[in-house]
Amino acid sequence: MAQNIYDDPAFFNGYCQLRRSIDGLAGAAEWPAIRAMLADIKGLDIVDLGCGFGWFCRWAREQGAASVLGLDLSDNMLARAKAETTDGGICYATADLDHLQLPAAAFDLAYSSLAFHYIEDFGRLLATIHRALRPGGRLIFSIEHPIFMAPARPDWSEDAEGRQIWPLDSYQMEGPRITNWLAEGVVKQHRTMATTFNLLIENGFTIARTEEWTPTDEDLRVHPDWASDRDRPMFLLISTFK
Amino acid sequence: MAQNIYDDPAFFNGYCQLRRSIDGLAGAAEWPAIRAMLADIKGLDIVDLGCGFGWFCRWAREQGAASVLGLDLSDNMLARAKAETTDGGICYATADLDHLQLPAAAFDLAYSSLAFHYIEDFGRLLATIHRALRPGGRLIFSIEHPIFMAPARPDWSEDAEGRQIWPLDSYQMEGPRITNWLAEGVVKQHRTMATTFNLLIENGFTIARTEEWTPTDEDLRVHPDWASDRDRPMFLLISTFK
Repeated sequence: MAQNIYDDPAFFNGYCQLRRSIDGLAGAAEWPAIRAMLADIKGLDIVDLGCGFGWFCRWAREQGAASVLGLDLSDNMLARAKAETTDGGICYATADLDHLQLPAAAFDLAYSSLAFHYIEDFGRLLATIHRALRPGGRLIFSIEHPIFMAPARPDWSEDAEGRQIWPLDSYQMEGPRITNWLAEGVVKQHRTMATTFNLLIENGFTIARTEEWTPTDEDLRVHPDWASDRDRPMFLLISTFK
Repeated sequence: MAQNIYDDPAFFNGYCQLRRSIDGLAGAAEWPAIRAMLADIKGLDIVDLGCGFGWFCRWAREQGAASVLGLDLSDNMLARAKAETTDGGICYATADLDHLQLPAAAFDLAYSSLAFHYIEDFGRLLATIHRALRPGGRLIFSIEHPIFMAPARPDWSEDAEGRQIWPLDSYQMEGPRITNWLAEGVVKQHRTMATTFNLLIENGFTIARTEEWTPTDEDLRVHPDWASDRDRPMFLLISTFK
């Protein structure tokens, strides 16, 4: 079972302070890029893997999605998602993505935001998603970028001349990374870019597009502190189809 | 026109001392990985883009390739390739990949080893290759990995605790990188992983597999000095089909 860090009180309280928890999709820097990948979702049956507070589920219905199944491991998050949702076209349920079961050929789109990097057996999950998609169905997701996740010390550092650099190491050493983000001992699973792409392909997905999220010039005018995100990618977005 | 650095005497002399110039394919660390991607090439018409001394062209014919066209910008390299080849099934020709013209539907496999990172307009080249491939034809190539190429100072550095790290920066700043490898002022073209994949897809290629070359355990027993290549990938290998 994946670590249920979102139900850790310290982590959850910290997470609630993030812009993306207060402003929803508009508070997520990478949202415009993933929004562009989604394109038209009208009439689709959608599953949201790691739905959190349900921001995406509600947005998808506003865009005309036929139905949305929001799955999450965290009771804290699902409770707030349910409290903030009145739409009968959205169903929330508890699910551990490491042991996910889904009905066959039930969805046109599987969506996931920043959840898959907590999953240990990504191949198993992809096989489950593939089976659950209808022919031509899409899987569109974001994860923390492997460059962001790999280092033993994942924080900005300085070179001998005092210039800011990202201290990459351990890139090829896949497996758990334990960080102290919002709480102590948050466990993520590092996989290389190649492993992520190859697992998708081996499980029957065709790669349609990928983005290593970077701030636009407009982003930098509004958030000059995001400039360092041009030095190393923080998010990896991947669009695929069955 | 791409910089013709291989005809710079200092660079060429340095390049001739590399293991891959003395031992051929067996002297290239990434060869076993790209060999596995190639699989069976018997009976294929092949174009080798940046053929250098012709090692791959001769190997491909030994494997039963029907014909191999070896293209390179460097007269030095082509002169040695011709001098070392007696096989009439191999044809060598001078070509600048930045202005490449190829016949339509003439090849089953386009191969390239560590040449595309010198190319300025990768999209144009890919459109040319796609047109030159027969239906189902493959493009398999290696480039320097964007993580390897991006930094302002692309060399090992140390963090505050004296541990070796790869000082990543400028990852999202695509464009020329000037290094002093074998000679001064070698110009390479940095593109992100995402740009490389998206240009392939936009030009009609399907991604079949990718590898971020890393030494195997056996490699490390023979070459313990390769251990640092586990901290950051040096080569990116991509297998695609039309």
